[in-house]
Amino acid sequence: MIAFPVGYALSAGLLLAASGFASATAQMPPPAASSATSAKPFQSYSEIVAAAPAAAWRTPDPKNLIYLEMASGRVVIELAANIAPNHVANIRALIREQYFDGLPIKRSQDNYVVQWGTPDGQQPRAKIAAKSNLQPEFVRKLSGVEFSGFAFDRLPDIDGYAPQVGFASGFHAGRDPKASEVWLAHCYGAVGVGRGNAVDSAAGEELYVVTGHAPRHLDKNVTLVGRVLQGMPLLSSLPRGTGPLGFYDKPSQFTPIKSIRVAADVAPPERTDLEVIRTDSPTFQHAVEALRNRGGDWFKVPAGYVELCNVPIAVRVPPVKAMK
Amino acid sequence: MIAFPVGYALSAGLLLAASGFASATAQMPPPAASSATSAKPFQSYSEIVAAAPAAAWRTPDPKNLIYLEMASGRVVIELAANIAPNHVANIRALIREQYFDGLPIKRSQDNYVVQWGTPDGQQPRAKIAAKSNLQPEFVRKLSGVEFSGFAFDRLPDIDGYAPQVGFASGFHAGRDPKASEVWLAHCYGAVGVGRGNAVDSAAGEELYVVTGHAPRHLDKNVTLVGRVLQGMPLLSSLPRGTGPLGFYDKPSQFTPIKSIRVAADVAPPERTDLEVIRTDSPTFQHAVEALRNRGGDWFKVPAGYVELCNVPIAVRVPPVKAMK
Repeated sequence: MIAFPVGYALSAGLLLAASGFASATAQMPPPAASSATSAKPFQSYSEIVAAAPAAAWRTPDPKNLIYLEMASGRVVIELAANIAPNHVANIRALIREQYFDGLPIKRSQDNYVVQWGTPDGQQPRAKIAAKSNLQPEFVRKLSGVEFSGFAFDRLPDIDGYAPQVGFASGFHAGRDPKASEVWLAHCYGAVGVGRGNAVDSAAGEELYVVTGHAPRHLDKNVTLVGRVLQGMPLLSSLPRGTGPLGFYDKPSQFTPIKSIRVAADVAPPERTDLEVIRTDSPTFQHAVEALRNRGGDWFKVPAGYVELCNVPIAVRVPPVKAMK
Repeated sequence: MIAFPVGYALSAGLLLAASGFASATAQMPPPAASSATSAKPFQSYSEIVAAAPAAAWRTPDPKNLIYLEMASGRVVIELAANIAPNHVANIRALIREQYFDGLPIKRSQDNYVVQWGTPDGQQPRAKIAAKSNLQPEFVRKLSGVEFSGFAFDRLPDIDGYAPQVGFASGFHAGRDPKASEVWLAHCYGAVGVGRGNAVDSAAGEELYVVTGHAPRHLDKNVTLVGRVLQGMPLLSSLPRGTGPLGFYDKPSQFTPIKSIRVAADVAPPERTDLEVIRTDSPTFQHAVEALRNRGGDWFKVPAGYVELCNVPIAVRVPPVKAMK
């Protein structure tokens, strides 16, 4: 069977849930690990992560998890409350006002973003407590002391868009020690706040998700608020809009949002329980090294490098849940 | 209207055809160029390219253009005959044997690739003149003299995957002067040759197209043979396969290929006439600088850098054709 290129660790953090995950690994052509003749068989990212101890996983706070519900299913987003606290609080307020319910996904631009919110030409809905304008949180600016204490799991790999790259509070991020700034990076699945020309012209009523090659030039120009943990294909495979910038020409092309809810407000049986790999865990470091220098029977030339957005942050269904 | 992030130059080379292109630019929110107060208004990549002189465009050789025909439409691919001559010749031979006609797109892995060829478990079709095995063309290895004469339009921007990056024969590429090697890069829309573990285990019967964030770790491990010039959305928005590695579980999920044809073999009235921006043109260099340091009313912080796969190689319908 010719089934290449291999892609076991390439779904941008959207690994299959634990039960499916193991079987997918087992069936993967080519066997990425082990041959009888190899003294120290290569282990892939997926294999390392699949064997990670419980301590390598964290459970996102249900206050920071939101569910985007469509007819096709649920998209689970984790909000980065440590990076963009004011926007995250306002998005939570919007959700609790049911601001998004019934609004459409109105844009799908190939190799770029999907976006939802008020259709062009319509008045935005009235708000109750949520704000319409917020000061930007393009970067998290920290005092020197705060900066050195702010968790950042750095990658040694070079990057053209940021002096340093790695993971801030478990999200793909850039960092500038001279400016004492940390910011989220526009990797696949990143969720951002659409805005007009003024930096304070929005407050989360229009959200977009990166569905293409990382548009990192947007970093530090937009407030990013989180990333998709599960359900990317429901967004990434939407038909592309044929209007300018991928907006849909006709309302009939819209995908309606049934609702957006904060997981903490959803009855536990209806929640999607997920765990995220800790980017400060030795397991994760080990797994990233397996991306940098891929081995096994298929790869012939290891890159010796991994670019930030090519590092998936693995997600799984907790084993107890998976066994139910 | 809140219509962000802006994306005028972000469709990975797949700019709209000339007629639609101009109007799309005109309607783009926000106006990326000009304000009355600005002495030297910023021009975006799209605007620069739209105003490019005729000399900045090249017409691909119809022998190197192939049409992938599906019920949903036509995907146009340019083959990189200068980089992978043997594979390109063999793919042309396969096409002329109608090898691909009726085979399916059998894989769509989110944020990675689509792939077509013989479904798993079926015998590959018999071939007439086309070969089943070829020596790899992962890189184009050149003698020192050849290397210095091989057209390569270099970007000054750093890259973690290659000592140098730029454009070889007009395709996204990496280069290593020490090894006298040039190779195509796995950017969005790149077309590659699936293979088994052995480097000579295939010859173009299985082709894949990159539909996600550039998997550059595959560079130098696969023979890349070209890139999609038009029609990416027909591939990138296909439903994701739910089997391992994004293969479709059931034949009913396949998208049949009606045919693949070499443009030179198609009657001129049925051809898709396209021009590609010359990567050695001053216009292109100017346009790339506009990606590196984006201005206008929306961008607040220019990146001062552009990553190889974030540089679109613009495509247009020739103006005479567009006026028909």
